[in-house]
Amino acid sequence: MFLKNCWYVACTPDEVSDQPLSRKICGQRMVFYRAAENQITALEDFCPHRGAPLSLGYIEDGLLVCGYHGLAMGADGKTASMPGQTVDRFRCVQSFAVVERYGFVWVWPGDQALADSAAIPALEWGEQKGWAYGGGLYHINCDYRLMIDNLMDLTHETYVHASSIGQKEIDEAPVTTEFDGDTVTTSRYMENISAPPFWQMALRSNDLADDVLVDRWQICRFSPPSHVMIDVGVALAGKGGFNADDKYKASGTVVDFITPESDTSIWYFWGMARNFKPDDADLTAQIRDGQGAIFAEDLEMLESQQRNLLENPERKLMKLNIDAGGVHSRRILARLIKQETQ
Amino acid sequence: MFLKNCWYVACTPDEVSDQPLSRKICGQRMVFYRAAENQITALEDFCPHRGAPLSLGYIEDGLLVCGYHGLAMGADGKTASMPGQTVDRFRCVQSFAVVERYGFVWVWPGDQALADSAAIPALEWGEQKGWAYGGGLYHINCDYRLMIDNLMDLTHETYVHASSIGQKEIDEAPVTTEFDGDTVTTSRYMENISAPPFWQMALRSNDLADDVLVDRWQICRFSPPSHVMIDVGVALAGKGGFNADDKYKASGTVVDFITPESDTSIWYFWGMARNFKPDDADLTAQIRDGQGAIFAEDLEMLESQQRNLLENPERKLMKLNIDAGGVHSRRILARLIKQETQ
Amino acid sequence: MFLKNCWYVACTPDEVSDQPLSRKICGQRMVFYRAAENQITALEDFCPHRGAPLSLGYIEDGLLVCGYHGLAMGADGKTASMPGQTVDRFRCVQSFAVVERYGFVWVWPGDQALADSAAIPALEWGEQKGWAYGGGLYHINCDYRLMIDNLMDLTHETYVHASSIGQKEIDEAPVTTEFDGDTVTTSRYMENISAPPFWQMALRSNDLADDVLVDRWQICRFSPPSHVMIDVGVALAGKGGFNADDKYKASGTVVDFITPESDTSIWYFWGMARNFKPDDADLTAQIRDGQGAIFAEDLEMLESQQRNLLENPERKLMKLNIDAGGVHSRRILARLIKQETQ
Repeated sequence: MFLKNCWYVACTPDEVSDQPLSRKICGQRMVFYRAAENQITALEDFCPHRGAPLSLGYIEDGLLVCGYHGLAMGADGKTASMPGQTVDRFRCVQSFAVVERYGFVWVWPGDQALADSAAIPALEWGEQKGWAYGGGLYHINCDYRLMIDNLMDLTHETYVHASSIGQKEIDEAPVTTEFDGDTVTTSRYMENISAPPFWQMALRSNDLADDVLVDRWQICRFSPPSHVMIDVGVALAGKGGFNADDKYKASGTVVDFITPESDTSIWYFWGMARNFKPDDADLTAQIRDGQGAIFAEDLEMLESQQRNLLENPERKLMKLNIDAGGVHSRRILARLIKQETQ
Repeated sequence: MFLKNCWYVACTPDEVSDQPLSRKICGQRMVFYRAAENQITALEDFCPHRGAPLSLGYIEDGLLVCGYHGLAMGADGKTASMPGQTVDRFRCVQSFAVVERYGFVWVWPGDQALADSAAIPALEWGEQKGWAYGGGLYHINCDYRLMIDNLMDLTHETYVHASSIGQKEIDEAPVTTEFDGDTVTTSRYMENISAPPFWQMALRSNDLADDVLVDRWQICRFSPPSHVMIDVGVALAGKGGFNADDKYKASGTVVDFITPESDTSIWYFWGMARNFKPDDADLTAQIRDGQGAIFAEDLEMLESQQRNLLENPERKLMKLNIDAGGVHSRRILARLIKQETQ
Repeated sequence: MFLKNCWYVACTPDEVSDQPLSRKICGQRMVFYRAAENQITALEDFCPHRGAPLSLGYIEDGLLVCGYHGLAMGADGKTASMPGQTVDRFRCVQSFAVVERYGFVWVWPGDQALADSAAIPALEWGEQKGWAYGGGLYHINCDYRLMIDNLMDLTHETYVHASSIGQKEIDEAPVTTEFDGDTVTTSRYMENISAPPFWQMALRSNDLADDVLVDRWQICRFSPPSHVMIDVGVALAGKGGFNADDKYKASGTVVDFITPESDTSIWYFWGMARNFKPDDADLTAQIRDGQGAIFAEDLEMLESQQRNLLENPERKLMKLNIDAGGVHSRRILARLIKQETQ
């Protein structure tokens, strides 16, 4: 159960090089490749001739040539040519709207007539100078909504990520959940606390002391279909917290694009955008490696939670105040999915 | 199809250390851990909050703390606390009666009101001095009853274990099967034979000649749900066989606790108890290694037999005299399972 | 869906040595072994006693002895003996007609009353002197008909085997498809072309120039149930092509025996018979290694095509002129299967 008439992150541009990329998105096996003028293109990964995956082929003159019998497929899903054949009446394959933006390839898996690139979310860090971004991709065997739950309730940091970003004060700080249209925001502010190891590193990198008290914030924003942007940071205590002047803080946005592969598996694009020392490539790499290690800690938990839920389909889960972000996000999704399927 | 209102061996105490142990028993995923006062405890491995496995958590002040969001679970299956939450109305998880005895952890997977530790079988070798025990655990993909068949008909030793404990005389000796309530006993006595390699080793270890004729016995006792104790040994020929004075024989009890994981997989706890040279730790290790190698020979046979039976569900198997032990054990089980499910 | 009343290649004689061979053919798990007088024998791989696979046993005095409890099975599927048992009324297992011919073991999986060794196809290269044969076996997860399609349409050589036997002229040469009873023949002739790398090697091996223009031919012959023999070769241009004198050409027969294991997996026996330099064992090995590498290139394509078809069961595939060989072969099979099941 997922939305289809929306934009998902399918891959990063560097995954689509000379060799076509095969990736299943929302249950549909797609092939991503660069057609004429280097345009990234997505098609059903299914040759209309005999069903071979087009992703095993190669690109020639902007056409995707099937590696089995040489059918040359156009970016519109119409066969352009095939040796010795008249191809006018060949059945088409589905082509999918694709947009390259913010360093990601976005795809619209649903009704193509509705695909509008204006619906891709505006992302400040992706559009403006002064930001650096680093991230990666994990394949996880879980329902995409378990990952939304995970990200909309960061109390789990205290337990899953105890040695890096977790700290007892997260549990103890009250959490507030707010709504704005289809967006859900869960916020938590902690004052006069010690910075956990990850943020100590970030403070040092930003030429700030790492052994003083700080104010810390986590502002998680869900928007459909399954994007979660989390403003995170620390500021020297008493300098204004989230609103402190840049020189007193280290902050950024944790970026989470969750793309369903199937009902029980996802492509999870994770990363962090920051607006301090954006030109420091070593720092970008260091943050990415640290974040990759932290997020890897969630994998076993999510996959075994999924396995437990599949084995106990009759069990109702609890909905506590800390779960409000996930619960409300799921409600919005349920409503939108119902609309879409009607 | 297995009994649930009975005691099964779940694990050994050393498997339950600082880290909780997850193990599926009779189709139920359980977590085993040491609660307050080091008491081994078994619960459903399912956090009532969001379904995460409790086994990924940790123990603090005798409580099992969920590694996802910090719910602290009590040994009774009631949530003791959770940061920022009132937990009175949290749904409980099932706790299972557990007893640590004879070097094993016993669990009662069925109706907890019926769990009575007096029903754990009395085991002479587990209670008295003068015995040594060594053993191990195998996971095997077969119905637990195939393993009962295997152990209640030791003619297979001639074929499966030809190089260690098998010998032609097993086939040739008559087998008798007797009943006593829900217990089935299959006995075989062989006189004036050569000892096979395993028993030659045992004779030598017990300071007896290994190149003389011996009397040998195998007395297999099945008791529900799926325990098979096998008295085995050799005595110098003509000294009384099973009843010979200890100084003329090497003997012991092969211990088999078979615990269903699912309809087609088991946890197989195997070992040997002996009452000669009980303080010789090297001998215990040597016997355990030898027995482990011998029992490993059964694995491929049992798993491929299971695969064959699943592929041919309509086939009736034969019930020969040598199969009487298994056949009668299965009849007792069928009757008890029927009683239990009514 | 496959024919059962016909001969399939089951294995090669060297696969059946002292140890029995277990192999599933047409959904039936069989054991192949050498019974009395070294006669290759095929039985159900299922001991009538307790369902253990007979292939885990051993051969003694021409009987296949079950490795579990010593049942000794005769080549006719009747139990010959078992220690301590009267075996007259033991249920039989199916025995399958087996013939060793042309360096292969042929089995008839269907109605044994219809098995007639005269129905094994006559193979010139297998019967006469002056031929050499080398080949191998691949297990592939695809419907056997996808492999027939593959072999009856060699345009795929241009794409799948571009670096060895593929060349653009294959695509460009017209293909003709002919019928003769249940046999389908697809032929393609190319004149005045350069020889691709594989054929250059063959020309050199046959003491011919490899840098001159040649005539090339591919004549694919399907016969039920799933044998495809392909006459292939090159002759110096203008010397008569397929009919050229032996001294002007290098040629042979690509041998493909496709044996269904299940609806979606096959045992694929591939090889090449040639009638030049038949005594050159190094050349035989070189050709076999080259062919093995070429045919391995088809595996990923066939398996991913199969996966795509299973994921899209409603899709109709196209039937182009180049597919005529496969399409007609499938029609013949459909008719014969219908006859057989009526």
